[in-house]
Amino acid sequence: MTRPLQLHPDRLFPADKTSRDIARRLYESVVNLPIISPHGHTDPSWFADNQPFGNPADLLIKPDHYVFRMLYSQGVPLQSLGIPGREGTPAETDPRAIWQKFAEHYYLFRGTPSRMWLDTVFHDVFELDVALDGDTAELYYERIDSWLKKPEFTPRALFERFNIEVIATTESPLDQLPHHQKILDSGWGGRVITAYRPDPVLDPEFEGFADNLRKLAEITGEDTGNYAGYLAALRNRRAYFKKFGATSTDHGHATATTANLSRSEAEALFNRVAGGDASAEDAELFRGQMLTEMARMSIEDGLVMQIHPGSVRNHNAWLFDHYGRDKGADIPSRTDYVHALQPLLDAVGNEPDLTIILFTLDETSYSRELAPLAGHYPALKLGPAWWFHDSPEGMRRFREQITETAGFYNTVGFNDDTRAFLSIPARHDVARRMDCNWLAQLVTEHRLPEDEAFEVAQDLSYNLAKKAYKL
Amino acid sequence: MTRPLQLHPDRLFPADKTSRDIARRLYESVVNLPIISPHGHTDPSWFADNQPFGNPADLLIKPDHYVFRMLYSQGVPLQSLGIPGREGTPAETDPRAIWQKFAEHYYLFRGTPSRMWLDTVFHDVFELDVALDGDTAELYYERIDSWLKKPEFTPRALFERFNIEVIATTESPLDQLPHHQKILDSGWGGRVITAYRPDPVLDPEFEGFADNLRKLAEITGEDTGNYAGYLAALRNRRAYFKKFGATSTDHGHATATTANLSRSEAEALFNRVAGGDASAEDAELFRGQMLTEMARMSIEDGLVMQIHPGSVRNHNAWLFDHYGRDKGADIPSRTDYVHALQPLLDAVGNEPDLTIILFTLDETSYSRELAPLAGHYPALKLGPAWWFHDSPEGMRRFREQITETAGFYNTVGFNDDTRAFLSIPARHDVARRMDCNWLAQLVTEHRLPEDEAFEVAQDLSYNLAKKAYKL
Amino acid sequence: MTRPLQLHPDRLFPADKTSRDIARRLYESVVNLPIISPHGHTDPSWFADNQPFGNPADLLIKPDHYVFRMLYSQGVPLQSLGIPGREGTPAETDPRAIWQKFAEHYYLFRGTPSRMWLDTVFHDVFELDVALDGDTAELYYERIDSWLKKPEFTPRALFERFNIEVIATTESPLDQLPHHQKILDSGWGGRVITAYRPDPVLDPEFEGFADNLRKLAEITGEDTGNYAGYLAALRNRRAYFKKFGATSTDHGHATATTANLSRSEAEALFNRVAGGDASAEDAELFRGQMLTEMARMSIEDGLVMQIHPGSVRNHNAWLFDHYGRDKGADIPSRTDYVHALQPLLDAVGNEPDLTIILFTLDETSYSRELAPLAGHYPALKLGPAWWFHDSPEGMRRFREQITETAGFYNTVGFNDDTRAFLSIPARHDVARRMDCNWLAQLVTEHRLPEDEAFEVAQDLSYNLAKKAYKL
Repeated sequence: MTRPLQLHPDRLFPADKTSRDIARRLYESVVNLPIISPHGHTDPSWFADNQPFGNPADLLIKPDHYVFRMLYSQGVPLQSLGIPGREGTPAETDPRAIWQKFAEHYYLFRGTPSRMWLDTVFHDVFELDVALDGDTAELYYERIDSWLKKPEFTPRALFERFNIEVIATTESPLDQLPHHQKILDSGWGGRVITAYRPDPVLDPEFEGFADNLRKLAEITGEDTGNYAGYLAALRNRRAYFKKFGATSTDHGHATATTANLSRSEAEALFNRVAGGDASAEDAELFRGQMLTEMARMSIEDGLVMQIHPGSVRNHNAWLFDHYGRDKGADIPSRTDYVHALQPLLDAVGNEPDLTIILFTLDETSYSRELAPLAGHYPALKLGPAWWFHDSPEGMRRFREQITETAGFYNTVGFNDDTRAFLSIPARHDVARRMDCNWLAQLVTEHRLPEDEAFEVAQDLSYNLAKKAYKL
Repeated sequence: MTRPLQLHPDRLFPADKTSRDIARRLYESVVNLPIISPHGHTDPSWFADNQPFGNPADLLIKPDHYVFRMLYSQGVPLQSLGIPGREGTPAETDPRAIWQKFAEHYYLFRGTPSRMWLDTVFHDVFELDVALDGDTAELYYERIDSWLKKPEFTPRALFERFNIEVIATTESPLDQLPHHQKILDSGWGGRVITAYRPDPVLDPEFEGFADNLRKLAEITGEDTGNYAGYLAALRNRRAYFKKFGATSTDHGHATATTANLSRSEAEALFNRVAGGDASAEDAELFRGQMLTEMARMSIEDGLVMQIHPGSVRNHNAWLFDHYGRDKGADIPSRTDYVHALQPLLDAVGNEPDLTIILFTLDETSYSRELAPLAGHYPALKLGPAWWFHDSPEGMRRFREQITETAGFYNTVGFNDDTRAFLSIPARHDVARRMDCNWLAQLVTEHRLPEDEAFEVAQDLSYNLAKKAYKL
Repeated sequence: MTRPLQLHPDRLFPADKTSRDIARRLYESVVNLPIISPHGHTDPSWFADNQPFGNPADLLIKPDHYVFRMLYSQGVPLQSLGIPGREGTPAETDPRAIWQKFAEHYYLFRGTPSRMWLDTVFHDVFELDVALDGDTAELYYERIDSWLKKPEFTPRALFERFNIEVIATTESPLDQLPHHQKILDSGWGGRVITAYRPDPVLDPEFEGFADNLRKLAEITGEDTGNYAGYLAALRNRRAYFKKFGATSTDHGHATATTANLSRSEAEALFNRVAGGDASAEDAELFRGQMLTEMARMSIEDGLVMQIHPGSVRNHNAWLFDHYGRDKGADIPSRTDYVHALQPLLDAVGNEPDLTIILFTLDETSYSRELAPLAGHYPALKLGPAWWFHDSPEGMRRFREQITETAGFYNTVGFNDDTRAFLSIPARHDVARRMDCNWLAQLVTEHRLPEDEAFEVAQDLSYNLAKKAYKL
């Protein structure tokens, strides 16, 4: 017996009729706004080459660590999802078998945002009207696989259909951005910009750091063997990225540690780090120092700075050894901001023309640290609920714990932070619905007049992201 | 003027009519399911001997630290509740006077789960229909005291009436389990199993640790003076406990620290610990090492492992000196899981046939650490909201903060963890109601179809506990 | 186009009709109760001299760090709000220009408690019926400025109109309390008492600590050069404050650290501290030791003790250097209670006649540490949601996370903790509404009978504050 797949028009709205009606009205005013996607991980080659996406498993399962982390947690081996081990453990190669395995475990996603995003993709993009399970897996596979070959499902066609006004990808400073060049050369009107993610050349513990410095020297013609040359090389690449539309940088450190060393201390630290004999403390301090340097460069060149701390990467040593990184084993940990950011804020926190956007995986910092900091320092803004918290309950907690101290205007709208291109409309839709839900609650409780709520809804869905990211 | 005592059929359901009706329907489908009680502290002698319970004060007040901690916090001396001091401070001996004191302070429990559990016991078990206060204390005392003497109120009769399919008690490895033997011998059909709680022989700081090792040697015939013999003795007792139905072990350490030492390091550590000259750091490391050893034994023998960290025991030194342990002075503290569990997870986290159930008293770990860990590692599952959080709001927070990342199927249903036998149905009822409340919210907000919510309600109320605990 | 300014009679009540009706009924029973304001920072000279308040900017903007922190966070320079820099940076001096700037940025406060408090003042005190924005700024200025000159708007007239039964101000032990003396001498019936805030003479890192000890000696005639004389001087000032109605002390340390040193250790520590060569560790230990000494003095003299830890003061070094303290740059940080308070609790925690009221800026401690501690120790009570959390969502989280473990009777009602005199009725009104909201939810979910909710509403709005603070 197949079950229907339905997306209710009132999904995520409050149960109470008065509030629900307000939420609906607010949502109707923002549902058709273009998507601003200022931070994400889509592959620019999709838009450069505009080739059809692969099969359903390659597109929807293998790259989505939300999906396979849940299956893996319930004992499904990664090989059965087509993910090969590093030592050449044979993995399932039949995409239909992978899809079947996924479908049979789809019930595991009940109550999760992945379920909501995937159902929206199935329903809205592939017009499926029965629910996914073991019995309907084949039907799903056929539909998705065949439709992906149609011209209306190529990356650019979907980009336009999704009403994306601008999307940012994320690249290393070592990337020459050929795909962005190709997009620019193509004359296609879609706005696909890059963002500057310098972790590979800022983090002494990043794989291949020494090599990366060498490559950075080659690309820029600067001498990365000394601190001044290194900084010049970083500046050089920021300018290069700006030519490809970059308006932001992004920094994914394990902690929020920052530092503000004297020039001579910083040079000595760089020499240890570049020489390859940095201790773990040196590495941490260097990352912290470089955040402050990046902020200084942002004052010069206007790039918006994003700081995403708090993830213990590759927590599962065995899995990392056998399958590599990004397999769903990054685990958040407690993150201090109030002390860790002090050196950075001492240096640049009062600059009104600088924008530093903070994200967190530690929700305890929302009301205790982040909202008070962003509600005071001119340079600070708060990014949306992120990663594990990019979900209805996560978004609810974000607004409940942030708004009263930081207000709406120290936040920056939504970003999807995803490589799952097809889910982008679904993700922005969830954010718009949850923001309208929150605003409807404020209106219903007479904490905000309805006419103002309409203005805020526009701001949260569109204006704030454009303004904060200078798009 | 007496007030009525009523239990509304819709208690704990959402206010909104649509959601409430869904909650009701879901609840009706699970209300009559048998109780699975896989973790608790009832006294097996009750079921072995089947003698009537004592008087109301002995049954409902003196053993319930939830009750007397609240009264004590408001200045009621423990002696007036019949709890004697260690130095022989005279305590109230008249159970009627104790009951009267309790009744006069019953208003202190407004808004607490104790109030809800007790009212349910009063109403459902003793059929009282006026509220408890100073004026009705005597009426209550008479009713409860007289009914406890009736045959339908003996432990076995209540066990059957409560529709308990299986209940686990908790015993030390030094316990020979005579009561469980007597139950087995009696031919009575009630399933009362044990669980293996080895803290007294794993924790070097446990009272009488050295003696406990000696007793362990006597019981098992193993030489607990060396590490190999000690491990063999522990294995021996696990096998013994399995004969009495045990399917799980339980570990109540102060932190979640784990370790994975080499054999020689572990032996050296054991020698220091067994020799009685272990430092506090040694003791902590040894407890951590033993968690990993217990997990390895669980892979061998299939016992499910429960880890309950995070309580600072006996926080009130004066009270401990004068009245002893378990007087309501255990206070939770901040608990790290993401780093503390890494050694254990490195050793056994990827074992799909191992089940480790984690509990917490630090709710900040739900969304930040526990859900991400359980939503990734095959060996991990999450226990229900525990101890102070075993309450409507605590359960609500648990589902809100766990579900989106770990889903429902990395949780293990409810367990009551109580020595208050009469309250067991009330506790499971609260859990079922709150789960139905949460599911009704998901259905009302169109985050889960109603037909799937019915399946999940069954799973949360019954199936998951049976499966996770292998019952 | 001007927008109306309306205060809906149902503001902050639940959306659901059944719950809302209950909340309304409860609120009607407490709305007219007198205000008990046991902790705050109003200026006693207002009530002593009874002069008209200054202009709108001086009254409502310049002293309110909630207001200018938000404006500053969005790039509004402090000078433009009339706040001069320490080096004599010229600041705006025209109060109309300051008011205009504020009004144009008033939208920033959407969703914040400041917006609700201010709107209530505008509507209820100044009878304004259009919303504040750039267009209505002048209208507002004229109305407020002219009305402030009327006799019904003098401090004493407003005190009476606000139905304040008693208000506590907060003073240093070095204050001779001339304003309180003048109030007493005046024969006016308003009850304005002081509270003893000894941070300037207890905290070795307080500005001018050495001078403060000297002044303390002068005032008291005690020799503050030795520990015994120092303690005697503190006792002396406590007695003096009691003459002016003080019933409480207040302690604003950065952490909750306490200590319980031997007399000789304490003396040695005092000698280092008083000699001016205390390390940071010494200073922290001394503050901790003095909390325990203050608690001992409270046992003697009956003053209720308030501990307000957890704020990193003057986080913004540049702002502190240029504009001084209390400019919105105090940021909360993680605060441990369970270990930090142990020495204090070991010394005095079991004293039933002592009352120590704990506050927090770290909401994670509510359910994990504070409720379990207050639900056990006779000497502990919990203060209301404080500072950044003195808001609808903050109050909701407080009740949700505190009540189930500590109940209502280990809390102490509301206090407004404000220097914004005109907002006092609005703040108490928000607290009463949110408490009635919470009680209505308990009643609707059948967790508390409605007749008991009426009793609790009275307790939370009035009785508990009077009792806890001995007023």
